[in-house]
Amino acid sequence: MILSGLLTSVAINFALCIIFFTLYSILRKQPGNYKVYAPRLLAEGIASTRRPRPFHFNRLLPNASWIKNAWHPSEEQLLSYSGLDAVVFMRIIIFSFKVFTIAGFIGIFILVPVNCSGNQLQDVDFINLTNNTLEVFSISNVNNGSTSLWIHLGAVYFVTFIVCCLLFSEYKYISLKRIDYFCSSKPQPHQFTILVSNIPVPKGSNVGNSVENFFTQNHPATYLSHVVVHRKSKVWTVANAVKKLYKKIFKVRKVPTQQLFMHDGLLDDSKVKVKKDKSREMYSNGDIQKSPTDSKFCKLPLTALTEYKRKYLIASVSSADVAWLNISTPLYTGYFWIRLLIQKSQTEPRICYVSLTALIEYNRKYLTAEIMIITLVKEVRAAFVSFNSRYGAAIALHMLQSNNPTEWRTEQAPEPQDVYWPFFSSTFMRRWISRLVIIVSCATLTILFLIPVFIVQGLTNLAQLEIYFPALKNILTMSIVSQVITGYLPNLILQMSLKIVPPIMKLLSSQQGYICTSDIERSACHKVIWFTVWNVFFANVLSASAVSLLFILLEIKDIPSRLAVSVPAQASFFIAYVVTLGWTSTSSELFRVVPFIGSLICKPFSRNSDDVTVPSFPYHKDIPKILFFGLLGFTYFFLAPLIIPFLLVYFALAYIIYRNQLLYVYAPKYESGGKFWPVVHDSTIFSLVLMQFIAFGIFKLKKLPYATSVTLPLPIITLLFNEYCRKRFLPIFMAYSTETLRKKDSEDQNLPEMPRLLRQISTAYQDPALVPLSYSSNHSSLREPLIPTAEVRG
Amino acid sequence: MILSGLLTSVAINFALCIIFFTLYSILRKQPGNYKVYAPRLLAEGIASTRRPRPFHFNRLLPNASWIKNAWHPSEEQLLSYSGLDAVVFMRIIIFSFKVFTIAGFIGIFILVPVNCSGNQLQDVDFINLTNNTLEVFSISNVNNGSTSLWIHLGAVYFVTFIVCCLLFSEYKYISLKRIDYFCSSKPQPHQFTILVSNIPVPKGSNVGNSVENFFTQNHPATYLSHVVVHRKSKVWTVANAVKKLYKKIFKVRKVPTQQLFMHDGLLDDSKVKVKKDKSREMYSNGDIQKSPTDSKFCKLPLTALTEYKRKYLIASVSSADVAWLNISTPLYTGYFWIRLLIQKSQTEPRICYVSLTALIEYNRKYLTAEIMIITLVKEVRAAFVSFNSRYGAAIALHMLQSNNPTEWRTEQAPEPQDVYWPFFSSTFMRRWISRLVIIVSCATLTILFLIPVFIVQGLTNLAQLEIYFPALKNILTMSIVSQVITGYLPNLILQMSLKIVPPIMKLLSSQQGYICTSDIERSACHKVIWFTVWNVFFANVLSASAVSLLFILLEIKDIPSRLAVSVPAQASFFIAYVVTLGWTSTSSELFRVVPFIGSLICKPFSRNSDDVTVPSFPYHKDIPKILFFGLLGFTYFFLAPLIIPFLLVYFALAYIIYRNQLLYVYAPKYESGGKFWPVVHDSTIFSLVLMQFIAFGIFKLKKLPYATSVTLPLPIITLLFNEYCRKRFLPIFMAYSTETLRKKDSEDQNLPEMPRLLRQISTAYQDPALVPLSYSSNHSSLREPLIPTAEVRG
Repeated sequence: MILSGLLTSVAINFALCIIFFTLYSILRKQPGNYKVYAPRLLAEGIASTRRPRPFHFNRLLPNASWIKNAWHPSEEQLLSYSGLDAVVFMRIIIFSFKVFTIAGFIGIFILVPVNCSGNQLQDVDFINLTNNTLEVFSISNVNNGSTSLWIHLGAVYFVTFIVCCLLFSEYKYISLKRIDYFCSSKPQPHQFTILVSNIPVPKGSNVGNSVENFFTQNHPATYLSHVVVHRKSKVWTVANAVKKLYKKIFKVRKVPTQQLFMHDGLLDDSKVKVKKDKSREMYSNGDIQKSPTDSKFCKLPLTALTEYKRKYLIASVSSADVAWLNISTPLYTGYFWIRLLIQKSQTEPRICYVSLTALIEYNRKYLTAEIMIITLVKEVRAAFVSFNSRYGAAIALHMLQSNNPTEWRTEQAPEPQDVYWPFFSSTFMRRWISRLVIIVSCATLTILFLIPVFIVQGLTNLAQLEIYFPALKNILTMSIVSQVITGYLPNLILQMSLKIVPPIMKLLSSQQGYICTSDIERSACHKVIWFTVWNVFFANVLSASAVSLLFILLEIKDIPSRLAVSVPAQASFFIAYVVTLGWTSTSSELFRVVPFIGSLICKPFSRNSDDVTVPSFPYHKDIPKILFFGLLGFTYFFLAPLIIPFLLVYFALAYIIYRNQLLYVYAPKYESGGKFWPVVHDSTIFSLVLMQFIAFGIFKLKKLPYATSVTLPLPIITLLFNEYCRKRFLPIFMAYSTETLRKKDSEDQNLPEMPRLLRQISTAYQDPALVPLSYSSNHSSLREPLIPTAEVRG
Repeated sequence: MILSGLLTSVAINFALCIIFFTLYSILRKQPGNYKVYAPRLLAEGIASTRRPRPFHFNRLLPNASWIKNAWHPSEEQLLSYSGLDAVVFMRIIIFSFKVFTIAGFIGIFILVPVNCSGNQLQDVDFINLTNNTLEVFSISNVNNGSTSLWIHLGAVYFVTFIVCCLLFSEYKYISLKRIDYFCSSKPQPHQFTILVSNIPVPKGSNVGNSVENFFTQNHPATYLSHVVVHRKSKVWTVANAVKKLYKKIFKVRKVPTQQLFMHDGLLDDSKVKVKKDKSREMYSNGDIQKSPTDSKFCKLPLTALTEYKRKYLIASVSSADVAWLNISTPLYTGYFWIRLLIQKSQTEPRICYVSLTALIEYNRKYLTAEIMIITLVKEVRAAFVSFNSRYGAAIALHMLQSNNPTEWRTEQAPEPQDVYWPFFSSTFMRRWISRLVIIVSCATLTILFLIPVFIVQGLTNLAQLEIYFPALKNILTMSIVSQVITGYLPNLILQMSLKIVPPIMKLLSSQQGYICTSDIERSACHKVIWFTVWNVFFANVLSASAVSLLFILLEIKDIPSRLAVSVPAQASFFIAYVVTLGWTSTSSELFRVVPFIGSLICKPFSRNSDDVTVPSFPYHKDIPKILFFGLLGFTYFFLAPLIIPFLLVYFALAYIIYRNQLLYVYAPKYESGGKFWPVVHDSTIFSLVLMQFIAFGIFKLKKLPYATSVTLPLPIITLLFNEYCRKRFLPIFMAYSTETLRKKDSEDQNLPEMPRLLRQISTAYQDPALVPLSYSSNHSSLREPLIPTAEVRG
C-alpha cells in the first residue's frame, strides 16, 4: 500500500467517525430513537417514548454530554448494573490501553529515532522502496549487524516483563472479583443445581425414577429434587412459530377488546393433578382476564371451557380471533397442539368439540381448524438435579459418579435463562461426535475463507488489478480512485466479509453440544480469535495462496525468518486495518447503523411501540476484535512503532463507546462470572510468543547471532509463566472452592427466602416451550428470558 | 547385518537360554540357593534353608517341574498372592501373545507368500542385495505398483481392528478388576487418607493447628485426624547410617548375650506424655529384653534408665557394645541422636550422664561418645489428613479446597509402605520447578545417549570397522569373528548400556516430586518407554547422527517415506535384538545371574543366613521392554513378518518366567491397583499409529496412490478410538466413583476392626526414621516395609 493510500484511508475513517459521533449525539436525544439508543432504559422503565418532553433547541445540537455520562459510573456501579462479564470486558480494554501506552512510549520515543538513524533501505535495492516510505520508521531501516538492535531486544524483554506483570495482577484481580461476586450474590437456582446427562435407565423404569434412586442412595443428605429434560426441539420450533403467529395476528388485527384463550401446558404427572384442579376452578369461575397491554404474552385463561374429559374437549370461543389449545392427556403419551384460526371475529360464543385425534369443526363457516400433533415428547436421559446446598451440588459435580464414566456425567447447571434448550443430545457418543464434526467444519471454514481474503489482498495491488481488468486501466490511473481502491476499499470488503464470521461461528458452536448460551459464546469467541489470527494476520502477512499457507506453517524452522521478512512490510496495511475495523467499526457500534435503519423502516408499520427488544452484548464478536488489535500491537510495537498511536486512539474510543453501550443498550443475558478472562490471557500469551518468534527471526535476518540466542529463553520463560498462571488461577474459573462454598452456604442458611427458593428450583428449569404462558407472576422472574430483575441477579 | 550373522546370534542366544534353563532347574532345588530363587517363600516361612532335607539324586537332575508349578496357579490365585499389578503385568504378555498370534498367522501364511512372489529385488540394483537375503520375504520384494499390496493394506486394517477390539476389552476387563479389587479389599489406612501440601500457616500458628482449623471448619462431619510431615531428609540419612552401622556391628561382633538398648523416639507432644509414662514403667521394671534373632531390628529397651528428666538423661549401659539414644525434649524443638560407641564390652553396668547439649563421658577409658545433633527438625507445610470414610476423603481430594489453588493442594495418600519419604519439598513452586528441571534433564539424557548407540550401530557394519581399525583387518576377515561381531556383539553392548537406563530414569523420577514409589516407578516406566523408542527404534532405523536425527523429525512431511525406506532394511537387526534382549535377557532373569553370583561371593562371609531380602518387581524395567517388543511386532508384521515367530517365542518364555518369578522371587512393595494399564494402552496406540504411518510411507514408495489415501483415515480412527477409551476408562484409574465408595463405606461400617483401624491411621503415616524401632508388634504390620501380611492386603 502506498503512503497516500494509507492517508486517504485514515482521512475517510476519521471523517466517518466524526459524522457518526455528531449524528449520535443528536439522534440519541430524540425520544423516537430511544428504542435504538437506550432500549435498556426503556425496558427498565427509566425512559419512555410516550412521556411527552418539552421541545428544546438543545435537542438538535450535537454535544459530548454522553461521553461524560459514560465515563462517570465507577467499576462497582458497572458491576452491579451489567454484571461481572461487562466489567471483565472493560478490563480487557483498560489492560490493552495500559500495555500499549508503555509499549508506545518505548516505540515512539526510543525505537523510532533508532530506526530513522539507520540507512539500510538506502543501501540495498529494497523492493518497492519508493512506495514504502513508512518503512524508514521501521526496523527494516536499521543496518544489518548494527548494535542498536540490542535496544530493540531490550524493548522486547522489557515489554514481555511488563505484560507478564500486568497479566498476573489482572488475573489475580479478576479472580478475586469473581469470588467476591459469588460471595455477594443472592441465592440463585443454578448455584444449587447440576445437569446430569447420560443417565442409564434400567428396563421397566424411567429417567425420573432412575435419577431419584441414584441420588437418594448416593447423596442422601444433600439431594433435593430433579427435573427431567425432554427432547422437544420439535415442540420448541412449533411453539415458537405459534408464538410468532400469535404476536403477528395480535398486533395486526388490533382488536382492543379481544379475549384470547390459552390453556396451561402440563409437564409432569404430579403436576397434571394439581393443574387439573386449578383449571377446573378457573373455568368454573368463568372469569375472563383481559390481556394486560404491557406484558409480552398476555395471560390467556380458557374462559368457557365447560368440560374437560379424557376424550373430548369442549371449548367455547367468545369474540376471539385466535386460540391455542395445548392439551395434555393424563396418560402423558404426548402433547397435542391445536391451533384454531377463527377467520371472522365472533360476536357470540361458539362451542367446538375437539377430540384428541381430530378436531370436529362445529361451524365450518366461521372456523378453520388445523391440528398439529407432536407425538410422544420423549424423555431425554438428562436431568437437572438440585441439592439443598451449593457444597452438596459441587460434590456431586466434581466426583466421578459412576463406575462407567460415560454415564451419570455431571456439569454445572447454567442459569435458567442461559440454558440453550434446543440442543439436548441424548447420548455421550452423539455429543462427542457432533463436537468432532464441528471442529472439523470450523477448521475447513477457516481454511476456505482465505479465498475472499486473497481477493481483498489482490485489490490492494493496483498492478495486479490492471492485469486482470485491463478495461479499467483508465479509471485506475486516476489518483483519487487508486487511493480509494488501495487504501479504503480492501479493508471495507474484508470488514464486510469478516462481519459474517461471528454469527457463523456461534451457529457452529451451538451445534457442538453446549447446553448454555454462555458456553456457546465463549466457544465461538475462541473460534473467532483463531479465525482472525489465521485469516487476517497470517494470510495477509505471508500473502501466500490458501493451500501453500498450510505447507509454509509445516516448515517450522523457517517460520520466524519468513515472518521477520513479511511482517514489517505489511505495517501500513495493518494501520489501515486499525482505522477501518477499529475506529469506524467501533463508532458505527455507537451509532448502531443496522438497528437505526431498521427502526426507520419499521416505524410506519409498528404501532405498539412499547415492545422493546433489549439486545445482549455479543462478547464472541467484540472480544476477538480487541484481542486481535492487541496481537497487532505486540507484533508491531518494535517492528513499526507508528501503528501504536492509532491503536491507542482505538482503545480510548472503545473504552468510552462500549461503556456507553453497556449502560444504555445491552442487558446481560447471562452471567459467566468472568470466565472470558482465561481466553484473553491465553490469547495475550500467544501474541507475546508470536512477537518473540518474530524478534528471533528479525535478529537472525539482521545478522546479530548473539541477540538471536539471547531471544530464545524469552518464549520459554513466557510459556512457563503461562503454565504457572494456569495452575495458580485457572482452577478458580473452573470451580468455587470448598472454603467459599461452605462460607456462602452457612451465611445463607438463615435467609428468610431460602426455603421458598429451594422449593422453586425445580420449576426454574422447565423448558419455556412447555411452561404455560399464563404462569403466575411470582415465578416469572426466574424464567424471564431477557431482563432479569435486580433482586435475582444480586 | 548378513544372514549368517543373524543365525549366529540366534544360535548363541538359544544355547544361552538352554544353559540358563538347565542350571536354574538344578540350582533352584538346592536349599543353599533358596535365598536367590525363592526368597519370598523363605521370608514367608514356607521354605527354610535350615530345615534339613534328605538328599536325593533327583536334586542334581534338570527337570521342567518348575514350568508346571508356574503355569498352574489361576489368575485369581496370582491376584490374591501378588496383587493386581502383577496380574496386569501378566495381562500385558497375554495381550501381546494374542495379538501377535493373529498378526503372525496373517504375516506368515498370507503376506510372506505374497512377498516371495514379487521380484522387485531382482529387477533393481538393490543396495547390499547379497547380504540382505532376508529381504526376499519382506515387502521390499513386492513389485512397485503391484495390486498385491492391497493385501498388505487389508492386513493393516484388519490388525488395527483386532488390536482396537482387544485393547477395548482388555481395558474394560482391567478396569472392572480394579473396581472389584477395591471392593473386596479390607479397610486400609490409605483409603481414608489424603496428603495435603502447601498448607498456609498464619503467623503465630503452626502447621498442625492450621490443618486442624481448616478441616474442622470445612469438613466437620468427616475429618478424623492428621499427621504433619517433617522435613527430615537429614534424619533419614543419619537414621539409615546408624541402622546400617548397628546391623554391621551386630552381625560382625556376634555377641550372643549382648543387650542393646534403644529408647523410643518421640514424635508428637501428645505422644510424649504417653511414651514417658510407658518408658517409666518399663524402666522401673528394669527387665532386659533379649533381642529375638529372627527379627530384623531387635526390640531394644533401655534397661536401666533410671531417670528421665528435662535436662539430664541418666542411662546405664550394661555389657553392651553399642547403644543409640534418641531423645526428644518435651519442648519439641528438635531431636538429638546420641550414638554411644562402647569400645570394650562391659561386664558391669556403667552410668553415663547425658545432658541435652553435651554428652559427659563418665568413664573416658571405656567410652567414646559422639553426639550428632540434628537441630530443629522443621515441620513441612504438608500433612496426611485422615477421614472417617473413604467418601469423605474422596470429597476432600477432588474438591478445590482454597481460593488460592496453589495452597491446600490435595492428592491421594499412598499406602504407608509406599511413601517416598526423602522427598517432601515444601513449596508448590519448588516442586513444580524440580519437575521441569527433571523433564529437561531426561530429554537431554535421551538425546546424548545416542552416542553409544551409534558406536553399536557402527559395529554391525564390518566395512566401517575396517576403515576405522585397519589393524584388525586380518581378524575381521575370519568368518566366525565377523559373524560374532555383526550378529551378537552389537546387541550385547546395546543391552549392557540399556541396562543402566531404568535405574537412571527411576533416580530422575524420584527427584521429580512424587511422594510415593509407585508413582516414581510409573513415571520412570514412561521415561524408559520413550527412551527406548527413540534410542533403539528411531536411532537404529534412521541410522542418523545424534544431532541430525532431531532435524529429520522436524521435517514432518518426510517422516513416513524415510521410515518406509529404512524400517524394512533393519529387519534382521531387530530379529537379533529380539533374541538377545528378549530370549536371553528373560532367561537370565529366571537364572538371576547377578543375585546368584552375589550370593556365591557373600556366602563365606555371611553367617546369619536367615536375613532374607525379598526384592520387589521392577515394573519400570520390564514393562517398557515388553511394550517395545510389541512396537517391533506392529511395525514389522506387514513389512517383514519373519520377526513374529521370534517374538511369539519371547512372549511364551516371558509368560512362564515372569509368572515363576512373581510367585517365588518378588513380593509386591505397593499396590497401584492396575494403574500401569493406561501406560500400556497409550503406548500400544502409539505403536499402531506408527505402523500406519509406515504403511502410508510404504504405499507412497511403492507407487500405489489409492492405497496411500485409503491408509489416511486409519490413524484418525485409531486416535479417535484412543480418545474414546480415555473418556470411557481413564477416569476409573484416576478415582473411584461415588457409587463404589458409598457402597464400600456402608459395607464396612459395621466391621469390628473399623474403630481400631481409624484410631491407628495417624500412626500409620509416621516417618519410619522417627518411629521407634521397638514398636509393638501389633502395629508393625501397618508399617512393615517389605512383606505385608495377607490380612492387611486382603
